[in-house]
Amino acid sequence: MIGVAETNRNPNPPTDITLLGLGAMGGALAAALLDAGHSVTVWNRTPGRDTDLVARGARTAGSAREAVSASPVVVACLLKHDSVHETLDPVVDALRGRTLVNVTTTTPNEARELASWAADHGVDYLDGAIMAVPAMISSRAGQIFYSGSRTAYDALLPIIETWATSEFHGEDAGRASLVDLAMLSGMYQMFAGFLHGAAMVGSVGMSAADFAARQAPFLAAMTGELAGFADVVDGGDYTVPNQQSLDFSDLSHIVRASQDQGVDPAPIAAVQALIDRQVAAGHGSEGFARVYESLRAGELVGR
Amino acid sequence: MIGVAETNRNPNPPTDITLLGLGAMGGALAAALLDAGHSVTVWNRTPGRDTDLVARGARTAGSAREAVSASPVVVACLLKHDSVHETLDPVVDALRGRTLVNVTTTTPNEARELASWAADHGVDYLDGAIMAVPAMISSRAGQIFYSGSRTAYDALLPIIETWATSEFHGEDAGRASLVDLAMLSGMYQMFAGFLHGAAMVGSVGMSAADFAARQAPFLAAMTGELAGFADVVDGGDYTVPNQQSLDFSDLSHIVRASQDQGVDPAPIAAVQALIDRQVAAGHGSEGFARVYESLRAGELVGR
Repeated sequence: MIGVAETNRNPNPPTDITLLGLGAMGGALAAALLDAGHSVTVWNRTPGRDTDLVARGARTAGSAREAVSASPVVVACLLKHDSVHETLDPVVDALRGRTLVNVTTTTPNEARELASWAADHGVDYLDGAIMAVPAMISSRAGQIFYSGSRTAYDALLPIIETWATSEFHGEDAGRASLVDLAMLSGMYQMFAGFLHGAAMVGSVGMSAADFAARQAPFLAAMTGELAGFADVVDGGDYTVPNQQSLDFSDLSHIVRASQDQGVDPAPIAAVQALIDRQVAAGHGSEGFARVYESLRAGELVGR
Repeated sequence: MIGVAETNRNPNPPTDITLLGLGAMGGALAAALLDAGHSVTVWNRTPGRDTDLVARGARTAGSAREAVSASPVVVACLLKHDSVHETLDPVVDALRGRTLVNVTTTTPNEARELASWAADHGVDYLDGAIMAVPAMISSRAGQIFYSGSRTAYDALLPIIETWATSEFHGEDAGRASLVDLAMLSGMYQMFAGFLHGAAMVGSVGMSAADFAARQAPFLAAMTGELAGFADVVDGGDYTVPNQQSLDFSDLSHIVRASQDQGVDPAPIAAVQALIDRQVAAGHGSEGFARVYESLRAGELVGR
């Protein structure tokens, strides 16, 4: 099942939650749980981060073991994948029979490794990928993608929905992270594209602000093209009519203009290289969406 | 003067116009001029493209020389830079004293070369870069950037505004093309970023349509960040507070996730390389906008 699961509210969710990791995001998650009336136990490797949360009613655990033992649901919001093992490996016996919600940023394969490790130790594992900055948690303005244990997701939905809009992406634990990183990949490529364009016009003294005033609404309007590219990709036929061809999408004049102006063409040259690969294979008259074929995996990966 | 000029309408604009090149865009430009009541002479290297336009009142010229001689204003909408010389070099004596509006797609340096060539032959030169597809001309839904002769721009504004919203970008004839290509560079990098993200999630069987439904509104919202990056770039101080640092923007987990899924990481790796260059130079704690410094020209180019 590929789509996103509908809401399936549990009338009797657990109300005791432990939160490991009180960085900016962990602190925001804990505060939102306290605001929603949950009983929250907090722990951080470096002490002293819990003062505000304790003032708002959180309990502090003196050790990771004490923290894990305090609640049926343990949320980990740590620095990186390694931190999860460093914190939980020594206390995994105490974690047995509980649910681990890991919102630490990881790659899909790291999330899959943690899910496998959790299964080996009798821990129900739900992976979360947060599409928000900490300030967006209190206003529920963000999104969190989840994957892994469907049972855990259904049981915890009333709790995790206090943080953000929730979407369940399937039982492959790596999938939430993958969707999250794919979304961010698009964002960073758009940001780099803007800064590259700003450097091009900056080479003749046009301000980045003048460029942004034109580029931002133009790019926002052009996001309207993405659904059309997607339809062609999903259909698998890049010869359908009314597409801009790869030949017409030749970017070599943009690459040359960038070079002529003394601006590093690397980010747009990377796009041209993807186009070139398809043109060289004889697909120049097919649609721009065929760039997907220069990038795609040869076979399905994960579960 | 960096900004965009205000409108400066001429009460007595010329009304006879010649249009060279009747591809899809040239045809749309000629049709819009006819609709606005102008006397239009058309010419195309390959005959037979003028039937519809003649039915709507256009005059056909039997040769490029006849076409150039028919009007004080000659619009060139040809295939590429070389085509402009191939068409106009043999008849440049007939072009002397007239105004050439070149909307053929060129690089900035090619536009500068044409402006210099025109000046050498007593021709007033205005370069135009069209931000529209042909269908947008009749509805005036696009934009055209102009640069080169300010006198020509002011005189022709009532005519050229029948095509699109007009913006004058200065007397460096290459500037309109440069702004146009910078805008398109950002667009193609956004498109490639989307297709890369779609390939990432496609590797676990998520449809591109499902991804587009999330990515399009997310990217549209994220265009709201561009003005902030621009302010930092223009200010020249990448240490101002409340920015996401380059260290925090490390994309190596996205590169790794892409590789793990069998998806070519080239376009996001190109962005990471720009970040790495700044981090290696000791700027990791500064803002993401510093990526501009990995791209920018060492000095101003053009005029």
